[in-house]
Amino acid sequence: MQTLGIIGGGQLARMLVLQAAALGVRCQVLDPNPDAGAGQLCQQIVADYDDIEALRALSDAVDALTYDFENVPAAALQQAKLGTKLSPGVSVLHVAQDRLKEKQLFQQLGIEVGGFHAVNSRTDLLEALDQTGYPAVLKTRRMGYDGKGQALLRQQEDLERAWQQMGGEDLILEAFITFQQEYSIIGVRNRAGEVRCYPLVQNVHEHGVLRCSRVSLAQNRRGQNSLGQNWDQLQTQAETCLHAIAEQFDYVGVLTLELFLCDGRLLANEIAPRVHNSGHWSIEAADCSQFENHLRAVLDLPLGPVTVSAEALMLNFIGTMPDAQQLLQVPGLHWHDYGKQARPGRKVGHATLCGTDLAQFRQRLQQLVSHRPFTQLWTLLQDLQ
Amino acid sequence: MQTLGIIGGGQLARMLVLQAAALGVRCQVLDPNPDAGAGQLCQQIVADYDDIEALRALSDAVDALTYDFENVPAAALQQAKLGTKLSPGVSVLHVAQDRLKEKQLFQQLGIEVGGFHAVNSRTDLLEALDQTGYPAVLKTRRMGYDGKGQALLRQQEDLERAWQQMGGEDLILEAFITFQQEYSIIGVRNRAGEVRCYPLVQNVHEHGVLRCSRVSLAQNRRGQNSLGQNWDQLQTQAETCLHAIAEQFDYVGVLTLELFLCDGRLLANEIAPRVHNSGHWSIEAADCSQFENHLRAVLDLPLGPVTVSAEALMLNFIGTMPDAQQLLQVPGLHWHDYGKQARPGRKVGHATLCGTDLAQFRQRLQQLVSHRPFTQLWTLLQDLQ
Repeated sequence: MQTLGIIGGGQLARMLVLQAAALGVRCQVLDPNPDAGAGQLCQQIVADYDDIEALRALSDAVDALTYDFENVPAAALQQAKLGTKLSPGVSVLHVAQDRLKEKQLFQQLGIEVGGFHAVNSRTDLLEALDQTGYPAVLKTRRMGYDGKGQALLRQQEDLERAWQQMGGEDLILEAFITFQQEYSIIGVRNRAGEVRCYPLVQNVHEHGVLRCSRVSLAQNRRGQNSLGQNWDQLQTQAETCLHAIAEQFDYVGVLTLELFLCDGRLLANEIAPRVHNSGHWSIEAADCSQFENHLRAVLDLPLGPVTVSAEALMLNFIGTMPDAQQLLQVPGLHWHDYGKQARPGRKVGHATLCGTDLAQFRQRLQQLVSHRPFTQLWTLLQDLQ
Repeated sequence: MQTLGIIGGGQLARMLVLQAAALGVRCQVLDPNPDAGAGQLCQQIVADYDDIEALRALSDAVDALTYDFENVPAAALQQAKLGTKLSPGVSVLHVAQDRLKEKQLFQQLGIEVGGFHAVNSRTDLLEALDQTGYPAVLKTRRMGYDGKGQALLRQQEDLERAWQQMGGEDLILEAFITFQQEYSIIGVRNRAGEVRCYPLVQNVHEHGVLRCSRVSLAQNRRGQNSLGQNWDQLQTQAETCLHAIAEQFDYVGVLTLELFLCDGRLLANEIAPRVHNSGHWSIEAADCSQFENHLRAVLDLPLGPVTVSAEALMLNFIGTMPDAQQLLQVPGLHWHDYGKQARPGRKVGHATLCGTDLAQFRQRLQQLVSHRPFTQLWTLLQDLQ
């Protein structure tokens, strides 16, 4: 029986642990939270992510190591000398933890990306704004996620407030991107260099937080998206980007690339060197979920299929879980409660609605949105297939 | 967050625990084996099933209680006064633990069943054989499973050996049934009395142990089985039986009824008051698995859909797990390793092969049977749809 260590014990680790059990793999997680969602289902080392001794202890106890979020301190992982047991490796973390390096990598690999400028002084910022014009977005290079660590500059008056708020260095100014749609592509690469990509996922964010994700069976047949564009062309462009990034790091495991669709072209936004919220639909609507494919890659097992096997819509539950008594009445709704305490803004669970074809899916969707708190979702969903 | 106690910590409890996690339900199991498959994923009380204090401690720690096998001593459960926390209740165990009571119940409820006779003496046996003729099967009334505790009497010469071997009382003689096919029906009943049944599963046993189970999408459309019989008619007959049994015990949870198909009619064989090996396909090929529906019933949540959502074949792994490196290359093969030590005759895992339609399923099946140890499966599978 193989054993796997996971640095981080949140919901992504939890879903990895559940899938690992089916593969007969025992997990152990490292997380400072003594009631971490994944720790409820396996052994846990309660320690900070930069606790070198704890990292070493985890590594010694397992056959393979991975992480469930990209802000694990790269320096600590390096110091703990986890070597080839760790996949993905440390190199991708240096880039994924830094918006500037990330965008520079896109440029270097010939991946289309919006305008950006490093900002380390007020002069830098003014020069950068000369190039991008208003609106633009000022962001911290590090530790930003779910819309945190950024300020929108609509006009010159916003500049001072943002400058005070964000501190004066290690910033990046990005041109404001007016996109038609948001996508992500999730791929998996094994040690032999084989890469498989799931179909593009269409995402909807609210206040910087992912609200829902959609994949359709039409994408297997390579039809058209709701804007009349060929899936084939978009998919090829996205896969080419993902391949280039994965090659760059000799990457092993699941890798996610978030993208904006602007005027028929995909622009790279950011990478996540891990399983991703926008891939949760794959638990029910793919023959091999992102969690299983990550495990297969990390444990050197054959990669699984990445086609869509059902119409699917993933909905995040934010702050608190909705009423299960009501929602479990909707057929084809798959419930995922992360075992967390309710807290405003916190991702506490998700559900994936599935249908074997579009007619069944739409019927179920209408049943779903008839329930509060999903009535207002209808507007969001108009934009999806 | 709700909590569930499970008496028994084998693979059925393990799969309940995995599904419970998605529902945000924390489990605790009671099992004498300190490395029980389910105990690897939740808290475990290591104690014998008739340890009244341990049963009480489990009951006090949880909101609801269930069991994962039918040979939990009914007397101990009664003595522990688990009351309405326990579902299914104790009454069904008295019947499910006794082949004679079981067959008498079938008769009482008007459910078709093969000939049987209580045997408590040599005279009983001879009288019973006068009625059934040879061949017949002599079985212990209690503790038989997977073909254990039974002897086939082909001719008069077998009588003495069997009589010596089986002991002289608490036996049942059953007429030998020549069946065309074996089926099971799995249903779920909630506290309000609502019953939902999955489509009939076709099963193949080898040496008394379940080898594989098959469900097809054709069953949703109520087409015909491989013998040209209407699914509709068979399904209706099986559901009527299951309803009657469930009503009898005011049953809450998943209930399984095993059936023989003889000359176009279904004969009841035995019941299992629990999730069942022949329902494992439902994890991937139904919108709500037998495990989830059992949890929903026991925890008083709405029941989920029971239709088939993919072509599916479940294969048991007996004795040892096959080579994952080879088999995970088969697309649509879902792997379930129970985390057990290999041991001859032991169920150590299963896999379910799925396909979105019959063409894809057959293609994948051919790929599967090209791998050892599944080459010889082909003959077994000829009989399935």
